[in-house]
Amino acid sequence: MNSFVYENATKIYFGRGGVREHLAEAVQAFGKTVMLAYGGGSIKKNGIYGEVTEALKAAGKEIVEFSGIMPNPTYRKVLEGKKMVQENGVDFILGVGGGSVMDCCKAISMAAATDKDVWKEYWIERGNVDFEPVPVGVVVTVVGTGSEVNGEGVITNEEEKIKTSRNYPRCNPRFAILDPEYTYSVPPLQTAAGGFDMLSHVMETYFSAPDGDNLSDAISEAIMRSIIDNLPLAIEEPENYEARSNLMWASSMAEIGIIKLGKRCDFEAHMIEHQMGAYTDCNHGMGLAVIHPAYYRRICKDGLAKFVKFAKNVWGIPGEGMSDIQLAYAGIGFFPKLVDLIIILI
Amino acid sequence: MNSFVYENATKIYFGRGGVREHLAEAVQAFGKTVMLAYGGGSIKKNGIYGEVTEALKAAGKEIVEFSGIMPNPTYRKVLEGKKMVQENGVDFILGVGGGSVMDCCKAISMAAATDKDVWKEYWIERGNVDFEPVPVGVVVTVVGTGSEVNGEGVITNEEEKIKTSRNYPRCNPRFAILDPEYTYSVPPLQTAAGGFDMLSHVMETYFSAPDGDNLSDAISEAIMRSIIDNLPLAIEEPENYEARSNLMWASSMAEIGIIKLGKRCDFEAHMIEHQMGAYTDCNHGMGLAVIHPAYYRRICKDGLAKFVKFAKNVWGIPGEGMSDIQLAYAGIGFFPKLVDLIIILI
Repeated sequence: MNSFVYENATKIYFGRGGVREHLAEAVQAFGKTVMLAYGGGSIKKNGIYGEVTEALKAAGKEIVEFSGIMPNPTYRKVLEGKKMVQENGVDFILGVGGGSVMDCCKAISMAAATDKDVWKEYWIERGNVDFEPVPVGVVVTVVGTGSEVNGEGVITNEEEKIKTSRNYPRCNPRFAILDPEYTYSVPPLQTAAGGFDMLSHVMETYFSAPDGDNLSDAISEAIMRSIIDNLPLAIEEPENYEARSNLMWASSMAEIGIIKLGKRCDFEAHMIEHQMGAYTDCNHGMGLAVIHPAYYRRICKDGLAKFVKFAKNVWGIPGEGMSDIQLAYAGIGFFPKLVDLIIILI
Repeated sequence: MNSFVYENATKIYFGRGGVREHLAEAVQAFGKTVMLAYGGGSIKKNGIYGEVTEALKAAGKEIVEFSGIMPNPTYRKVLEGKKMVQENGVDFILGVGGGSVMDCCKAISMAAATDKDVWKEYWIERGNVDFEPVPVGVVVTVVGTGSEVNGEGVITNEEEKIKTSRNYPRCNPRFAILDPEYTYSVPPLQTAAGGFDMLSHVMETYFSAPDGDNLSDAISEAIMRSIIDNLPLAIEEPENYEARSNLMWASSMAEIGIIKLGKRCDFEAHMIEHQMGAYTDCNHGMGLAVIHPAYYRRICKDGLAKFVKFAKNVWGIPGEGMSDIQLAYAGIGFFPKLVDLIIILI
């Protein structure tokens, strides 16, 4: 096993009623003014907004609202958030939403705590973050990116046509509230896109060096099987708690860092998708669902043994009477079949 | 998946040369006086003591030594450590050793920061730790307990004949340095005992409720297979880095909390072993190796489906033509076979 350094400071509250039970307590340690950040307003329709504001008020907080965070959040939006934090003396940022909201909040938390141009200094130049960002907490309502348990933030600079991600441990949310019931109202297509995103995170890790038999790969296989089993279930029965909770935890497990330990993790398909996203604003998970099979058919000959293992251990293809290359293609081919299945379901 | 709250504050440095590369930096944040705690002195024979003291001196620390921590560390030893910390104004406790050293250090870190009788107040009465223990860091030289990544401490009160464990997150080591090469000199029997201990941690978790198909059980299966594959290898070739590193990480993974999330974890075999240990001072891992098969043969009829899954997924028994109970017994029976194999090897 290769060397690594691991730390993860995020406290996770997982389960039904997480906001009602834990939010007031979780924000206690931070200052009085909370910026409540969210997306297009779906949280006002499904009751989440009401539960969150009630808990914040119970904790004696003053709320400043920052809404309209878009999918593929832009640097322009980050600067808008920075202004709001600075003008209102915000002590704590609470992001309520999916990956876009969480990533935008992390970038704002950095931008608001420095005079520097964070896009240039940290997203492009990868500078050393030698200051403390404004603390962030998150309430997850859409799963897939796993952003709730790491310091990653994917930001798009529209002018420069660059969408890119950086991971600064200081940006790890101080806490993440994961209530699977909060994802019941996520529509089928978005559920599927989130599912592909998390599957992609695990595949990118699994197919990166080293390939030696190790615990990381075995855990990755378990996570992939769990996603494959639970994704169609969650689409067919949106209020299936088992399926929603398994997906929610698989999403976090894919990105909490554990499976990446000792692996190179070049995230090649993500790199391709990010550029596609910068130019087309396409949905991230859907972009990945297109890229992975095409890319893997192209590269599988150079890592045949691993693709054979993937076909057998993840997709359960017995492989009798098949050559290695047939088996590798069969494994990769199951991925589009999952897409087909989901298209039928939705 | 059941609800849970998860946090883990320990920073892990994993890999070759960890002490030389990271120790001086890791202790930087803490005060000047470090209590270096260890066991019977094997670290003076294998060079670890020299590397550790050199790094501490390079970091400008003053060292106070506390040696002779025994297997099954006693409350009397904890009180001895408390005295040393208080009399020397110790700012930081560095434990160098295996589970006994780490557990003893955690109990000392609590005892030295309060006037209370910590055995009575926290190990027996399970009081709320409302004070900050003296910070602890660890350098692991023997694997098995997983104590390096949690707040657990197993302490024995010889007078009361009670050996028992408590887990206080405030006792999590601030950092853990895991260098697989530091375990090269662990003798075969102790390597085997550590292997059984970690296998036991995973089995206790795996066989506890809920039994529903979930990510925790799949990850547990992966960890158990890794231990079963690597333990005989590490005994046969003590300097096999792959085997030693896989075992080292499996030990931490078993106890870092991830597989326990949403599971009940009653740790029944451990409860039995602890009492055996309190009366006989037997080796913990060896005690578990005796208890598990006997206990599981007794209870397996009441959880047959899970024992069948264990036989198939962990031990790889195909099970054709076998009844469920035969299969369950075959799975449990592989455990003593692993013991036999290890007896032959050592």
